[in-house]
Amino acid sequence: MFPDRTLSGPHLARLLGEWRSSGPVYLALARALRLLVLDGRLPLRTRLPGERELAEALGVSRTTATAAYAALRDEGFLASRRGAGSWTRLPADAAVPEHPRGGGEDVIDLSCAACAAPEGALGGAIEAATAELPRHLPGPGYDAAGLPVLREAIAAHLTARGVPTSAEQVLVTAGAQHAWTLLLRVLAGPGDRILTEHPTYPAALDAVRAIGARAVPVPMLADGWDLDMLAATLRQAAPRLAYLIPDHQNPTGLTMPAAGREQLVALARATRTPLVIDETIAGLDLGPFSAVPPVAALDPDGDVVITTGSMSKAFWAGLRVGWVRASPALVQRLATARMALDIASPVLEQLVAVELLRDAPAIVERQRRGARERRDVLAAAVRSTFPAWRFALPGGGLSLWIELDVPRSTAFAAIADRHGVRLAAGPRFGVDGAFERHVRIPYALPAPVLEEAVARLAVAWRAVTESGPVTPEPTAALVA
Amino acid sequence: MFPDRTLSGPHLARLLGEWRSSGPVYLALARALRLLVLDGRLPLRTRLPGERELAEALGVSRTTATAAYAALRDEGFLASRRGAGSWTRLPADAAVPEHPRGGGEDVIDLSCAACAAPEGALGGAIEAATAELPRHLPGPGYDAAGLPVLREAIAAHLTARGVPTSAEQVLVTAGAQHAWTLLLRVLAGPGDRILTEHPTYPAALDAVRAIGARAVPVPMLADGWDLDMLAATLRQAAPRLAYLIPDHQNPTGLTMPAAGREQLVALARATRTPLVIDETIAGLDLGPFSAVPPVAALDPDGDVVITTGSMSKAFWAGLRVGWVRASPALVQRLATARMALDIASPVLEQLVAVELLRDAPAIVERQRRGARERRDVLAAAVRSTFPAWRFALPGGGLSLWIELDVPRSTAFAAIADRHGVRLAAGPRFGVDGAFERHVRIPYALPAPVLEEAVARLAVAWRAVTESGPVTPEPTAALVA
Repeated sequence: MFPDRTLSGPHLARLLGEWRSSGPVYLALARALRLLVLDGRLPLRTRLPGERELAEALGVSRTTATAAYAALRDEGFLASRRGAGSWTRLPADAAVPEHPRGGGEDVIDLSCAACAAPEGALGGAIEAATAELPRHLPGPGYDAAGLPVLREAIAAHLTARGVPTSAEQVLVTAGAQHAWTLLLRVLAGPGDRILTEHPTYPAALDAVRAIGARAVPVPMLADGWDLDMLAATLRQAAPRLAYLIPDHQNPTGLTMPAAGREQLVALARATRTPLVIDETIAGLDLGPFSAVPPVAALDPDGDVVITTGSMSKAFWAGLRVGWVRASPALVQRLATARMALDIASPVLEQLVAVELLRDAPAIVERQRRGARERRDVLAAAVRSTFPAWRFALPGGGLSLWIELDVPRSTAFAAIADRHGVRLAAGPRFGVDGAFERHVRIPYALPAPVLEEAVARLAVAWRAVTESGPVTPEPTAALVA
Repeated sequence: MFPDRTLSGPHLARLLGEWRSSGPVYLALARALRLLVLDGRLPLRTRLPGERELAEALGVSRTTATAAYAALRDEGFLASRRGAGSWTRLPADAAVPEHPRGGGEDVIDLSCAACAAPEGALGGAIEAATAELPRHLPGPGYDAAGLPVLREAIAAHLTARGVPTSAEQVLVTAGAQHAWTLLLRVLAGPGDRILTEHPTYPAALDAVRAIGARAVPVPMLADGWDLDMLAATLRQAAPRLAYLIPDHQNPTGLTMPAAGREQLVALARATRTPLVIDETIAGLDLGPFSAVPPVAALDPDGDVVITTGSMSKAFWAGLRVGWVRASPALVQRLATARMALDIASPVLEQLVAVELLRDAPAIVERQRRGARERRDVLAAAVRSTFPAWRFALPGGGLSLWIELDVPRSTAFAAIADRHGVRLAAGPRFGVDGAFERHVRIPYALPAPVLEEAVARLAVAWRAVTESGPVTPEPTAALVA
């Protein structure tokens, strides 16, 4: 267990920001450092500056620096070795694996919210697709915009959902994340600002970072979107694009009402900001039925509304089939960009998707029923095991967004791993270390596995909360 | 037929560079403009500056500008309409479609060098893969590095080719272009220089441009690589990466001999430049057998040699399965980057690839036999139809790289399109408009189609060479 990286004094001083409080200075410093570790803003196995360097960078005495480090060491947040300096650790992490485990039999993976394939549906679809395949074998197999037959099928699917769509408005992609990557490539560039919800889907943020753009997060309220904040951000930050998940938002599970959608599209028109509406989980309504029209229904020509979708949630993520709905001109630009990215989607996979979309209503209804049952099992288990945690039962999607009673999500995820549960800590869903008080628990796995997972999490949570004299305090980075 | 874009006087002056020559100034100017059009450096349907603006920008009289435009108009290189200005065209292009045609029945597509699927092989592979699929259905279907069973199969395939490889050195990708995109994302960034061969695979250049990096081309010699030039470029331009196709180079068809490979790897080590070796067409040896070891055999740990490969050429491009062979540490970084790009490859497709790799020797041998026959048919047809064109019969790969007798590749491709043949003009394979004297003709389509294509090209070529009083001249942009 050696440090992975080394932090300079000035860098640590920047991370600490305003840290002084009443009481002894060394205790205030130790508390601030501890919170940085628990927030995940100071990664584990980071070597801290030496005591003299720390004292200089912070303008405190050497004795204070030494005492603060000693306190952290006593609490188990700092490991030291002569000649190797001091580095961050977690109080009970002696056995935390160096790397996340592989998909061993024993590990329950709650870090991704994707279900098993719908029983039975895939076999027939593959058989039918295989029968279709020979027609395509004489060709090179390249079709950057997607097989015409699948573009038609997706257009029909979207039309049935309430947005009249033609095949030329559809680009086939390798899933919604791939769609987002293509859109970022074509419509944005390094240094651009991209508006996102906060919290949001972690991989969407990763894609923004990957092109050197910067996410401008707009906080979600407990019960929905802060449209005033959104308007102010669109006007003042002038983002190049806005990325939103108005249906069963990931991770909060919230859905934007019809009036909000109208306001949103009006704002986008007024500020000329393209909206990328991610409908990956839109199909997974679980709650009592409420007809909210798709955002694209308010802008069917795709002047400002671009929709991405995927078969990953309502069908199976192992398919890797998604789409963009946009103006024909943008679809052409995206197809050209795709040639430079990965050329095209596999032919067989596209034909399987055509077959599955044919049976969409029946398949999706079955997936919904399963998700509803698993949601209720997980919610009951969490409520009885963790009475101090809070969450609203989501009306759709595949996960609970839970507010913990103490802000220790990163530590929780690290320790849960040792107990055989992989979790995505709250800060994965935000920028700058926010959401340390939250955790997302998906109900994508079978009910008995979820119950076993909650039992393991109970042990892990006990280890977290009993692991040291930690007094949780609000910090700038914590969003309650 | 209206202009797509408008060029300013100073912009056109920059494009023209040194254009004056002996004889009347207006004729020199007309000739220089005509060559820009034929080079493809001045795109069709570009509105040129008005005569007064042109005269000012070039420091010539208004009369000269007027006379030059009039000459171009007479030759058919300029269209004018009162109030709309003058824009570039080709002499006989009245009917050139505004956009490349779709895959109509009638068009022979020679723009991409990918074959039909191997007859019969795919059906059995899909059946076997479908039987395997149920094991994977209960999972989420995500595996960013690829299914372990496919990573094993690719490792075995590479081992059989002479490079001992373990599964952890293999990342599954959606083809070699996707592999290159991932490598650029992880190892390079905006402003970086990327060494490439010149000419090279167009989509590889597109991917470099897409991340805001810059290709530094090293010219190919008529019979191989200029290793001195390569060494000087590695040392002086300090490229972040080098991208090379040492086996049946695309488009030249050349193969780097064993001694050159040793020198190349030594250079990469000395300058610490990672080499990305694209082996997409490495399997398609057609000529007399000559055992050239894979470049990775000289650096099996992947210190400086990264290999990309694909099933697109020797199997079928409609599969979209490729790989990276690299150090396990780099494979992990690429897998993480893939999560942000498009998450993972489809499960079924990966299982089909496993089955095909099982039969690789037989399938590849059949594909080779077909390619050899088609190569010989195309070569014979080109030789008898175009005696003034020159090419070396390639020992592998899927295309002829042909030197035309006049530098009019761009015009040729535009006019061929009207005659039902889609061609990639020479400049697609280079940067800055080079290779106007070359054209790539693949032999991926069936022999009778190739013969029909050559017949159509004969008509198109006649239209090109008879279309005006064009005296081909060498310019800085032409590489003979």
